[in-house]
Amino acid sequence: MWKPDRSTRKPIYQQITDYMERRISFGEFPPGSVLPSERKLANLLGVNRSTVVLAYEELRASGIVESAQGSGTRVTKHKWGLTPKQTPNWKTYVEGGTFLPNLPFIRRIREELRKKTGIIDFASGELSNDLFPADTIRSLLQEHPFLGQLGYEDPQGYRPLRQTLVSFLEEHLQIQSTDASILITSGSQQSLYLITQCLLSPNDAVAIEDPSYSYSLPMFQSAGLRLFRLPVDEHGINPEDIITLYRQHRIRMIFLNPNFQNPTGSIMATERRIRLLEIASELGIPIVEDDPFTLTALDGNPPPTLKSLDKTGNVLYIGSLSKIAASGLRIGWLLAPQTVVDRLTDARQQMDFGLSTIPQWIAEQFISEGHFENHLKTLRRELEKKRNEMVRGLQTIMGDYMSYTLPQGGLNLWCKINREVDDFKLLDEAIKRGVLFVPGSVYGSDQGHIRISFARPHFDEILPGLSYLKEALDIHCK
Amino acid sequence: MWKPDRSTRKPIYQQITDYMERRISFGEFPPGSVLPSERKLANLLGVNRSTVVLAYEELRASGIVESAQGSGTRVTKHKWGLTPKQTPNWKTYVEGGTFLPNLPFIRRIREELRKKTGIIDFASGELSNDLFPADTIRSLLQEHPFLGQLGYEDPQGYRPLRQTLVSFLEEHLQIQSTDASILITSGSQQSLYLITQCLLSPNDAVAIEDPSYSYSLPMFQSAGLRLFRLPVDEHGINPEDIITLYRQHRIRMIFLNPNFQNPTGSIMATERRIRLLEIASELGIPIVEDDPFTLTALDGNPPPTLKSLDKTGNVLYIGSLSKIAASGLRIGWLLAPQTVVDRLTDARQQMDFGLSTIPQWIAEQFISEGHFENHLKTLRRELEKKRNEMVRGLQTIMGDYMSYTLPQGGLNLWCKINREVDDFKLLDEAIKRGVLFVPGSVYGSDQGHIRISFARPHFDEILPGLSYLKEALDIHCK
Ligand SMILES: Cc1ncc(COP(=O)(O)O)c(C=O)c1O
Ligand SMILES: Cc1ncc(COP(=O)(O)O)c(C=O)c1O
Repeated sequence: MWKPDRSTRKPIYQQITDYMERRISFGEFPPGSVLPSERKLANLLGVNRSTVVLAYEELRASGIVESAQGSGTRVTKHKWGLTPKQTPNWKTYVEGGTFLPNLPFIRRIREELRKKTGIIDFASGELSNDLFPADTIRSLLQEHPFLGQLGYEDPQGYRPLRQTLVSFLEEHLQIQSTDASILITSGSQQSLYLITQCLLSPNDAVAIEDPSYSYSLPMFQSAGLRLFRLPVDEHGINPEDIITLYRQHRIRMIFLNPNFQNPTGSIMATERRIRLLEIASELGIPIVEDDPFTLTALDGNPPPTLKSLDKTGNVLYIGSLSKIAASGLRIGWLLAPQTVVDRLTDARQQMDFGLSTIPQWIAEQFISEGHFENHLKTLRRELEKKRNEMVRGLQTIMGDYMSYTLPQGGLNLWCKINREVDDFKLLDEAIKRGVLFVPGSVYGSDQGHIRISFARPHFDEILPGLSYLKEALDIHCK
Repeated sequence: MWKPDRSTRKPIYQQITDYMERRISFGEFPPGSVLPSERKLANLLGVNRSTVVLAYEELRASGIVESAQGSGTRVTKHKWGLTPKQTPNWKTYVEGGTFLPNLPFIRRIREELRKKTGIIDFASGELSNDLFPADTIRSLLQEHPFLGQLGYEDPQGYRPLRQTLVSFLEEHLQIQSTDASILITSGSQQSLYLITQCLLSPNDAVAIEDPSYSYSLPMFQSAGLRLFRLPVDEHGINPEDIITLYRQHRIRMIFLNPNFQNPTGSIMATERRIRLLEIASELGIPIVEDDPFTLTALDGNPPPTLKSLDKTGNVLYIGSLSKIAASGLRIGWLLAPQTVVDRLTDARQQMDFGLSTIPQWIAEQFISEGHFENHLKTLRRELEKKRNEMVRGLQTIMGDYMSYTLPQGGLNLWCKINREVDDFKLLDEAIKRGVLFVPGSVYGSDQGHIRISFARPHFDEILPGLSYLKEALDIHCK
């Protein structure tokens, strides 16, 4: 959403005048329609009401709007020589479309972060800027000339990167693959998107974890899937639940994040994995293993992936550099049977013609030149420090407000709040005090949990953030 | 699709053995199923039949497959301890999904190019490698340290790039905008995809040009749109046709490429543009102006864009660096009313979390540091040379086989063939002789046209390519 730019010399009220004028001329507010009240617009833009009053006065002065008796400010009827029917009714377009919008609280959190007010961010499940391998990437860029070609890249992905990933997957995760069975994507998010668009049809039943990764929910809903939930406990989902779901709903696919699950952090128990693979293979159901976190295992001893145990080829494996290197590179991969890779490649070519060569080339260099090993060591050490700091804070600051299980990897802590809370209201209080987190109900789970990221805030922000959160809880629970 | 790798030391037959073994173990060919015949597989992979025979013998020797009496080669029943029901039936998944595959001839052309046999490429509507600003980009990368952040980028796009585009659009195309009304996309392709997914619903009627940009057709069909065609002549579409379509089908959107239209190269006449805008505004129908080619105007005097004439905000404007700088950067932009930008940003965040920062940063540097002007001059000069060479070739080599209108920009020549031809069969003949083009019927138009790109082949390939094409025509028309 547009916000006034506080870094330029143009006065804010003037920026708002121009902005509203543009919206009017673009037909968002057709002639005769009523503008948002001054108070409402001020709220939306995060400015004082008096600033909006000034802006509306400007618009009135230039004859674009007029005061409407008792009903605020209205777009002048014959300004621009427009009649209402002359511009497209954008509202009906924006509200149409098969693609559903994000959940409102996700938009809310994103808005807060975009304001750049210095709010402490326990909400984003990503690394802090100091943990990205920025120096390495900078020197890669400066020391190695880019000799690749600049035409349309193979939509399946830059082949040297796919070849490097074959060794990477084998070495780090004991996963066998070939470059022909790997598709490079713009992160796990795009992998999930391609799978839902190309392999599933509206009304298909699929099983997902409860709670589960929040950004995938609207995407699944946009695809018209029927979602059935597999409760996650400390040891992951219970595979026997799948049999029941299959009998009742003929589920066609299972989406799991077995290692350091988002949001709970739990690791699926080995016996459960084995049983899960047996069941999936018996019923012929594909499992999508969404695996962004395995290599964050703090002790350097990652649990096995499902894919490495998969003998029947039931597992579509999804990985990404986002959580172990840099989310801004937008590099992910999908390992699947040849026919599936071919199908998804063909579709993604229609959606965006494939990824830019350059980040793929950077990723290839970064992984293949041994930078990765060192980076991973540092990353684990720093993540462990931060996790410990957050746990220390929870113990010293939070009293008995929260319980949690100590995560052994991943980027988040999943906390149960030992009080009655409305997690959205709690978020409001927390934002007022300068800290963001993700309400648990976002993940589809019951009220009473929150997810806080220890990876995203700077080390020094962890304790202050927890104090603000404690204040918010005090207010909310009193 | 997988192809044997001729650059490694591993024998081809061995590569094929491994490949088929993998497909079998991944459940593509369940136990008991029949493998493709040796001849068919050899054809698909572009190898001799004897090579596949060797591979199948290997598979037989290791007990994975067996000869089936009279019916070829069959996967052994109890190898792997699998029963047919144990692996997912990938075929049903691959054939499901709402997303339609690309047209077969597009896949065919892509396959030929992927083989890297040195075939002369008149098919790809993109620049040749020597026309990309590779040196400039290389030195940008080496001389300017990347100081951006490496976290998730704003899904609306890197703000400095949006700001630079505001000046760029004003200066080069007389288009007014603000950075808040620009969305950065992974090329025009993604812009079109977002529009169809987010602003239109299945069964909506839309108007497209005939002939029109081929890659958009399956995408529109995947979205369930009803397509109505506006014939394109030398001066573009006839705007009055829209009134008829609107009366009959309530068309909800119009997709146009008014400057150097793909594939015809035609420029929409100014009176028609003005009338079109009047009609669209009268009926309240948005126009999507897909404008990748304007700045390729060979004489440096680009025709005006629709957007620059649009007073009522009916035009959603789409641009891209693909045809004027480098398609492999995957940088495009969409200019739209605020609500539309907000909606598309929200959706694309769900699809891929936004673009990698790095190509956006490169694009920003490239445009803002004045490299662009010089590059554009060189580009136009070189394109003009190539177009002239191709026209010379058509005159000297083709006799009276083809007629065409001289294109003043864009990357292609649209040729009418003055004989009865089956353009797909002609393509087969041409491929045999070492040249690729795009059959006209791909663009939805009548038989009897082909599109040949003068931009993609190297200068020295233009005449030989035309000779091969002439041979193919001789055979086909005799
Ligand atoms: C479980 C899970 N899957 C997928 C993603 C998307 O990550 P990427 O940046 O690779 O698209 C995330 C990001 O938070 C995640 O937690
Ligand atoms: C008319 C038209 N639109 C869109 C595109 C897609 O271009 P890109 O996604 O590379 O910007 C092309 C490419 O050929 C085209 O010709």
